[in-house]
Amino acid sequence: MKKVCFIGSCGHSGSAVSVICDNPAKFEVPAVCAGAAGVSMEKVVKNLTAKGFPAPKEYLDYQEMLDQEKPDILVVDAYFCDHAKMSIAALERGIHVYCEKPAATTLEDLDQLEAAYRKAKEKGVHFAYMLTTRYDPWFYTAYQAVQQGAVGEIRMLNGQKSYKAGKRGVLYHQRDTYGGTIPWVGIHALDWVLWFSGKRVKTVSAVQSAIANNNNGSMEATAICLFQLEDEVVAHINIDYLRPQTASTHGDDRIRIAGTKGVIEVRGGQVYLINGGAQGEQTLPLQQPPKIFQDFVESLNGEKACTITAEQSLYFTRVCLTAQKSADSGLLIEM
Amino acid sequence: MKKVCFIGSCGHSGSAVSVICDNPAKFEVPAVCAGAAGVSMEKVVKNLTAKGFPAPKEYLDYQEMLDQEKPDILVVDAYFCDHAKMSIAALERGIHVYCEKPAATTLEDLDQLEAAYRKAKEKGVHFAYMLTTRYDPWFYTAYQAVQQGAVGEIRMLNGQKSYKAGKRGVLYHQRDTYGGTIPWVGIHALDWVLWFSGKRVKTVSAVQSAIANNNNGSMEATAICLFQLEDEVVAHINIDYLRPQTASTHGDDRIRIAGTKGVIEVRGGQVYLINGGAQGEQTLPLQQPPKIFQDFVESLNGEKACTITAEQSLYFTRVCLTAQKSADSGLLIEM
Repeated sequence: MKKVCFIGSCGHSGSAVSVICDNPAKFEVPAVCAGAAGVSMEKVVKNLTAKGFPAPKEYLDYQEMLDQEKPDILVVDAYFCDHAKMSIAALERGIHVYCEKPAATTLEDLDQLEAAYRKAKEKGVHFAYMLTTRYDPWFYTAYQAVQQGAVGEIRMLNGQKSYKAGKRGVLYHQRDTYGGTIPWVGIHALDWVLWFSGKRVKTVSAVQSAIANNNNGSMEATAICLFQLEDEVVAHINIDYLRPQTASTHGDDRIRIAGTKGVIEVRGGQVYLINGGAQGEQTLPLQQPPKIFQDFVESLNGEKACTITAEQSLYFTRVCLTAQKSADSGLLIEM
Repeated sequence: MKKVCFIGSCGHSGSAVSVICDNPAKFEVPAVCAGAAGVSMEKVVKNLTAKGFPAPKEYLDYQEMLDQEKPDILVVDAYFCDHAKMSIAALERGIHVYCEKPAATTLEDLDQLEAAYRKAKEKGVHFAYMLTTRYDPWFYTAYQAVQQGAVGEIRMLNGQKSYKAGKRGVLYHQRDTYGGTIPWVGIHALDWVLWFSGKRVKTVSAVQSAIANNNNGSMEATAICLFQLEDEVVAHINIDYLRPQTASTHGDDRIRIAGTKGVIEVRGGQVYLINGGAQGEQTLPLQQPPKIFQDFVESLNGEKACTITAEQSLYFTRVCLTAQKSADSGLLIEM
C-alpha cells in the first residue's frame, strides 16, 4: 500500500489519479493541497471518492501536509514556477516525487533541485517526470522499432508540438508563473529527440514569439529550437499554439527520425516507417505501452527500472531552459 | 524566335529543353557547351534533334559560344562553382540568364554576380533561377491559397527537403565544385519559406554533417537551418540525403505554414489545410501551374512578370551561403 499526496492539478496529475483509481488495494490518498490560489483539487477528489476512496484531507500548506501525512509519493502538479521548491521539500523528507514538467522554470531553481535530488538519491529516493507522451502508443511503438534498428544509426531528428491555444488561465499569462512555451510544451518534443537518440546537446539556438497567442499574456505562440547533438547528429523542434480550433485533435505531435537505414515518423497517431525491408514503406501496428504512473510505482518497488529516469528529467529541463535563454537573448549557447 | 544556348546539363536545364521542344516555332538552339570535363550534352542534343531541331554546334569555350552565337538566352546548368562566372559572362554581353541554383557557391562570387546583374538590369537584361518546385502543382496551389488568406498572417514556416543520396558524380564530392548541401538542396525549402512569407532574414544559425552520405565525398548528408525573420516570424528548414532507396519517390518535399487563421501543409504531393472555414480540415484540389521556363520567356517579352525575380534568386542564394557559413563556423549570423 502506497500513500500518495497531491499538490495541485494544473497539468497531468490525472495520469496518477487514474492508476490509483484502478488499483484501490494498492494506494491510499490521505491528503491533497491546491498549492496556489485559484487552483482547485475538486476534480481529483471527485474522481477518487467516486471510486470509493475516502475524501482526502485538504491542506493549505503543503509542507505541513508532508510533515503530517508522511506520504511515500508526492505528485507535484502546481503552478510551474513552484514545482522545484515543492519537489525539493519532498526529496529532503525522503519522499519520492512524481512531477509535472517543467521541474523548474529558472536555471537557478533547477540547480537547487538537482542538488536536492543528488542527496536524496543516496537514500534511494526517486524522482520522475510526467513525460506522458512517451507512453502514447505511437511514440512507444516508434521507440521500440528504433531500438530494434529500424532506421539504423540516427542522424537527424525533427520534432513538432502544435496545440490549440484556447483561452488559458493566468498561470500561462506571465513568464514568472508559466516558465515559457519551450519548457512547458517543447519539452515533450525534446524528450523524443534525446530519448530516441540517446545523445546529449552540444549547442542550442532558438527563436520564439508571443505574437498571435490568442490574448494569453506573454505566452509564446511559436518557438523553434535547433540542436547540435553529439556525434554530429542534428535535431530541431518546432512548437506552436496555432492549431486551429476546428482541428480534429487538440495536438499535432510529430517526430521524424532519419537514420542510416531508414526514416521513421510519428504523425497523426500513426507510425510510418520506410527502410530497406521487404515492405519498403509501411505503417507499424501500434503496441500497447504501460501506464506512466504504474511504471514509476513499480520502479519504486524495484520490480523494474522506470522508463523515465531522474537524470533525464533534470537534464531535459536544463536543455529547455537553456533553449529558452537562447531565444530570449538571441544567442547560440554551448552546453 | 528566341535563340537559346546551353552550358552544361548537371541540373534542371531539362525544364528549358522541354518547353523548347514543345514550341519549335518559338525557339532555336544554335549551340551548346559542356562547360566542364565529364559533363555530357548528349541528352540535351538528343531531345532537341528528336523533335526536329538541327543538331546544335558544340563549343569547348563558352565565352567563344556567347561571342559567336549571340543568343538571347543562356541556360546555365554547369558545375555549381561555375554558375556565377558563366552568368556574369552572359549578363555583361546583354544576354538573359536562366540559371540553375546555386547561382554562386561563395559569397565573393555572389557579390560579383550581383554587381554584374545590377549593371545588366539597367539595360533590361533578366536573370532568373531554376526554383523549379514553385511550379509543382502542390506548392503552386498552396501559394495561391496562402495569398488568398487561407492561414491569415503567417507566424511560422517549417520546410523539408529529403532526397535519396544514391552514388553521385564527382561534382558533389567536393565543396569546391558542389558548394554544399544547404545551397544546392536547401535553397528550394528556403524559397518556400521566403516566397510564401515575403519576409527577409534577420538571423540564421545552422548545423550540418557529412556523416552517412553514402560515400559521396564531403557532401553533407544532413543540415538544419533556423531563421529569425522580420516581424518575429520564425522558420526552419531541414535537409537530408537519407531517404531510403525503397521510398516511392526520390524526394519528400514539405512545407508547413502556421498562421493566425490556420495551418496549411504540402506533403506527399498534396495540400492539406485546416482553418476556421466550414470544412475544417480539407485537402485542396491541385491547380495547374505554368511551366517555369515559359514563365521566364514570357516575362522577357513583357507579357507578364516572372514569378521568380532576380532579386529573390540572388537574395536567397545569399541566405543559403550565409547559412552554410553558420554551419561551417558554428556561429549564429545576423544578416
